[in-house]
Amino acid sequence: MDPALSSPRTRVRRLPGKAVAELAVLHAVLDAGLVAHVGIDDGSGQPMVLPCAYARDGDGLLLHGSTGSRLFRRLADGAPACVTVTLLDGLVLARSMFESSMHYRSAMVLGAGSAVAPSDKEAALRALSEHLMPGRWGDARPPSSRELAQTLIITLPMAEWSVKVSDGPPDDDPADLDRPVWAGVLPLRTVAGAPIAAAGVTPGRPVPDYLPGWTFTGR
Amino acid sequence: MDPALSSPRTRVRRLPGKAVAELAVLHAVLDAGLVAHVGIDDGSGQPMVLPCAYARDGDGLLLHGSTGSRLFRRLADGAPACVTVTLLDGLVLARSMFESSMHYRSAMVLGAGSAVAPSDKEAALRALSEHLMPGRWGDARPPSSRELAQTLIITLPMAEWSVKVSDGPPDDDPADLDRPVWAGVLPLRTVAGAPIAAAGVTPGRPVPDYLPGWTFTGR
Repeated sequence: MDPALSSPRTRVRRLPGKAVAELAVLHAVLDAGLVAHVGIDDGSGQPMVLPCAYARDGDGLLLHGSTGSRLFRRLADGAPACVTVTLLDGLVLARSMFESSMHYRSAMVLGAGSAVAPSDKEAALRALSEHLMPGRWGDARPPSSRELAQTLIITLPMAEWSVKVSDGPPDDDPADLDRPVWAGVLPLRTVAGAPIAAAGVTPGRPVPDYLPGWTFTGR
Repeated sequence: MDPALSSPRTRVRRLPGKAVAELAVLHAVLDAGLVAHVGIDDGSGQPMVLPCAYARDGDGLLLHGSTGSRLFRRLADGAPACVTVTLLDGLVLARSMFESSMHYRSAMVLGAGSAVAPSDKEAALRALSEHLMPGRWGDARPPSSRELAQTLIITLPMAEWSVKVSDGPPDDDPADLDRPVWAGVLPLRTVAGAPIAAAGVTPGRPVPDYLPGWTFTGR
């Protein structure tokens, strides 16, 4: 298989030197994803990779965690972190195994985070909610001060980042083009099924307007 | 939002002490995913998180990379790694923002990898292919010796791991149950669209039998 998906992005760019077009792609990938994978050292030299709810907030990222999490407290203390968001868009079936690969969009952000101040927590939670569940904020009960105190939100500037997009048809070797085998792309996307009401929801209460409109990959 | 998704799995279990049932869940999550996020230190204290094609091979993982990747060479040298696979299954809309969360299945494997020996590379590539594109191996051209030489496959034993599943209805506070708001779950899944043939594929050549049968999340 093509090593593209597994190649590390060692060429991480610093903000001043990169094209506006690439920044727009970075933002689009971050805005389309729902889960980030956050890498942080546990303090003993062991990297840990945690799935995490996140949102982009201008040129920064917000990561949602708990004050009870040791690794999140390390993030809040500014330990070096890596936040990667990957959207899988398809499988590429080339005529050779070597050129077979995946379509994907992947963003990697390096940086040192800090805890969102208590006075800014509710606004940060609202930004997270608007990213993950647009329209929901204001419909559900807002967080109480006790709930806010249990929530740790990390803000992380996007000073260093890379973004990589793999798309297009299989890149077969010319010598393979005459092989009698089907080649092409199987597109993949994340879709929502029918909403499932919780027990106790008044029968007949309609699903909220915002819910059926949520689409995920590619939004 | 509920901090569940962002809580690190600090309670990583060692193989002898854990239940068979949990091992089966670990295997099921790893077998259902297509992309892993691999955490490795770049050598300077900076964790990097790379998306990576992978497969489970018994009690080990295979990671697909390139000999041209510096971070993959670090993996081959046995640097401590963390491999996380997360499947997002839904959004949980609770009656409070605090209890709103996600349905997911996430597996985390810690370990030190090594390079698959040249004589075992083709079998490892076949295992990767059978995981990602079952049935495709033998249809596309197998790797040449030159292509095998450019491919670096890491094998990583699953000696330490954790697995976490979040499912079920919103876990609302009893005081919130009477709120006049819809609550429930929006299921999410990854689906395949119609295959797109590459230019040059003989018109009328049927899509291979194995392709329409591929389903992804939940397989």
